[in-house]
Amino acid sequence: MGRWEPNARGRLAQAALTLYSEQGFDQTTAAEIANLAGLKERSFFRHFADKREVLFYGTDSLQDLLVRSVADAPPSATAMDAVSAALQVAGAIVQENSETARLRYAVVSANAELRERELIKLAEIADAMAGALRDRGVQDSAARLVAETGVAVYRVAFARWNSGQGRPDLQQELRESMDELREVLAVPLVSSPSPS
Amino acid sequence: MGRWEPNARGRLAQAALTLYSEQGFDQTTAAEIANLAGLKERSFFRHFADKREVLFYGTDSLQDLLVRSVADAPPSATAMDAVSAALQVAGAIVQENSETARLRYAVVSANAELRERELIKLAEIADAMAGALRDRGVQDSAARLVAETGVAVYRVAFARWNSGQGRPDLQQELRESMDELREVLAVPLVSSPSPS
Repeated sequence: MGRWEPNARGRLAQAALTLYSEQGFDQTTAAEIANLAGLKERSFFRHFADKREVLFYGTDSLQDLLVRSVADAPPSATAMDAVSAALQVAGAIVQENSETARLRYAVVSANAELRERELIKLAEIADAMAGALRDRGVQDSAARLVAETGVAVYRVAFARWNSGQGRPDLQQELRESMDELREVLAVPLVSSPSPS
Repeated sequence: MGRWEPNARGRLAQAALTLYSEQGFDQTTAAEIANLAGLKERSFFRHFADKREVLFYGTDSLQDLLVRSVADAPPSATAMDAVSAALQVAGAIVQENSETARLRYAVVSANAELRERELIKLAEIADAMAGALRDRGVQDSAARLVAETGVAVYRVAFARWNSGQGRPDLQQELRESMDELREVLAVPLVSSPSPS
């Protein structure tokens, strides 16, 4: 095996997902992942900091795509429009890779450490989208609220889609979840609650 | 030191926060925390699974309070009303313990592992509030959307309040953040974006 390792990261990510699904995250070693990917163990740690990170291969480029979607939304688009457009992009990518996405979700959901890592990646995506909204001239507080809400809608829509209870098309599920939230929030609050 | 350790958990939590603030999370040992709390090291691990968990002392009882607030909202309250009432309860508790809350936030924000743990606790709170909403007869998807959105609003409002940019009163900041999100979402979407 030479030093040139074509798409080593992608191969490691695929191998890790396969092994984590088949035998569990805790039961899988970096050496086994590298072996299945046809690489040496030290290659694993050249590409990924730890066994968790390999499951988040692609997160950075997804984040870049979402930020670009927010930035590229037409000038007339509201903050929520821009974030909705970004969610549609994420939905399209996940839909095209449904099988991997479902497998990955099952692995992440089964392990507390992985769920924690997933949540921090999503929080980073929300931060990045909020930054892109500020660059469009959206006020800081609105930018953060809309970006965080967008990620919340994504999480709920994805879980529904994945469970089979939602629409078979994730993009449609995302649109309907966003519409549902808008409707729920449009109902005036009955009271201005003040706790004793 | 006898076996009877009045409020050992609370004392350990306070000692941990003090030491994490003063010398950093990574630099602090469980033995030091126990020592500052006037306890033996093995007491620490009788009360907390690890150095992270001690910072989340009180999270479970906060979650119980929030769930009860959602459950106890008047029958006429919408899902968003019920969650807003719960956020006001959280806001009141944090406001009464401002100094501890700010110190804790600084410690958590400075450490990736702690941020991850914080996010999973917030996700558990959202799940629990969604369950309380379902018990009120709210549909599953709306329950999850509203609960997740409530937590998103809380995170943004808390960060603003903590930074000094927001209102000095966290409850007011929470109300205004919720109103702001409602206003932003009330603007019709310009387009139904569909990515190429």
